[in-house]
Amino acid sequence: MGAGPIWDYSKLCIHTITTKPWSLDEAISHYTRAGVSGITVWRNALEGMDPQSAGRRIREAGLEIVSLCRGGFFPAADSEGRQKAIEENLRIIDEAASLGAPLIVLVCGAVPGQPLNESRKKIRDGIAAIQPYAEERDIRLAIEPLHPMYADDRSAINTLKQANDMAEDLNTETVGVAVDVYHLWWDQELEAEIRRSGRAGNLFAFHICDWRTPTEDLLNDRGLMGEGCIPIRNIRGWMEEGGFDGFNEVEIFSNRRWAQDQEKYLEEICRAYLQAS
Amino acid sequence: MGAGPIWDYSKLCIHTITTKPWSLDEAISHYTRAGVSGITVWRNALEGMDPQSAGRRIREAGLEIVSLCRGGFFPAADSEGRQKAIEENLRIIDEAASLGAPLIVLVCGAVPGQPLNESRKKIRDGIAAIQPYAEERDIRLAIEPLHPMYADDRSAINTLKQANDMAEDLNTETVGVAVDVYHLWWDQELEAEIRRSGRAGNLFAFHICDWRTPTEDLLNDRGLMGEGCIPIRNIRGWMEEGGFDGFNEVEIFSNRRWAQDQEKYLEEICRAYLQAS
Repeated sequence: MGAGPIWDYSKLCIHTITTKPWSLDEAISHYTRAGVSGITVWRNALEGMDPQSAGRRIREAGLEIVSLCRGGFFPAADSEGRQKAIEENLRIIDEAASLGAPLIVLVCGAVPGQPLNESRKKIRDGIAAIQPYAEERDIRLAIEPLHPMYADDRSAINTLKQANDMAEDLNTETVGVAVDVYHLWWDQELEAEIRRSGRAGNLFAFHICDWRTPTEDLLNDRGLMGEGCIPIRNIRGWMEEGGFDGFNEVEIFSNRRWAQDQEKYLEEICRAYLQAS
Repeated sequence: MGAGPIWDYSKLCIHTITTKPWSLDEAISHYTRAGVSGITVWRNALEGMDPQSAGRRIREAGLEIVSLCRGGFFPAADSEGRQKAIEENLRIIDEAASLGAPLIVLVCGAVPGQPLNESRKKIRDGIAAIQPYAEERDIRLAIEPLHPMYADDRSAINTLKQANDMAEDLNTETVGVAVDVYHLWWDQELEAEIRRSGRAGNLFAFHICDWRTPTEDLLNDRGLMGEGCIPIRNIRGWMEEGGFDGFNEVEIFSNRRWAQDQEKYLEEICRAYLQAS
């Protein structure tokens, strides 16, 4: 079981947030020089830029744009808030189209204290509301389940089963799932649910990093592949058996790593990618 | 949906760890004076004591001993480590019997980096190994699933479904489950799985506290009931519909609360118990 080793960087994508201290243009030039093939652009990296020209620069450098991170955050308590979220997501779809990103990752959202079932219903309605516009602009949407420790304030979708249920219920080729090993590795149902996503044609994205023990910060203490306990290669194997042939996207939030020399860090990422993914 | 309000302290139990700065005897006298009815004794509170006389003092003060916390930690990597864990758990069964605690809560254990399926198998074998001795001494064992954020180093049992599967597989009246709202509140399957535990006669314990947002420490930042997002009353309702009529056990690890005046804290616990459980 498990996938074979990785021999090159042809499927290596890095999220700009992983090297947060770098501007988008710094990230482009360093990633390219290191032989990285893909980039997922976080919206903060586009601030004050024309997404169209940013997209052009990325492609000219030889990088493939894998996705735009991130839309979502649907379940506001009041309908005005939910309407605003929908409008914001329509703008994000425009941004993805201008940038030339084929996919938007959805962090679905949660409101502290709001019952999770209520949030889940609002998330479903929010995605249903933006889906036609995404389809029209040829942008796909990936529901990313987040770890249960984020259930109260970041996402009420916390297992791949829930994401699959929602994607299948919405029943459109535009909507699928993003599998992030950090959020899902612990789940005994993960293999079966990846298989299910695959059968439905819903495996849209694969994010990798590692779970450190002890984890000292709920948000920004993710590990580099190999630094923790996640059986990344096994999970990658399940993705590939499920028909996924997209990028392996390195998405690491880490105060400790952001404080480090980013060029050295990028070297470590590339090495860890071959050794521990 | 949800249970009715609570009007008195007849089902209120407090875990000694909740008021960690107090010795066992301080806890006994303060709990009693506050009208608390039950106590769950943590092993650290018994250190250097004769459990039999500790049990006598607790009962003479009028408190019911609800359980002994905690056994478990079965899945060591090597067989020697696993044998040691079994022996330690047999001693804990003796301790519970001497103390007069009818139940031991099992934090099943995990070993950083060890595949979860392997840990789960070792946990099952460990419980199977100690179960006959527990039965002989008339002590019940409750499998407590822990939050997925503890999967790598504390417990490979992370959902009530897993605990139910294991308890049903072991198929003995000695082994059931402990439902702790902190670990399980986020799970969409929780209501159905509590119903399932109830049908199997496996609802052995119910632990309450709250989930704070933001949570600043993975271990010791639990909230008092009402301070967070957990629908405690709903979950209590599911427990009661499932046939559970035991204690509502307040189990809170909190650096911030431990630093506070414990008498005032106990007053707050009692108030929160009536208002938000």
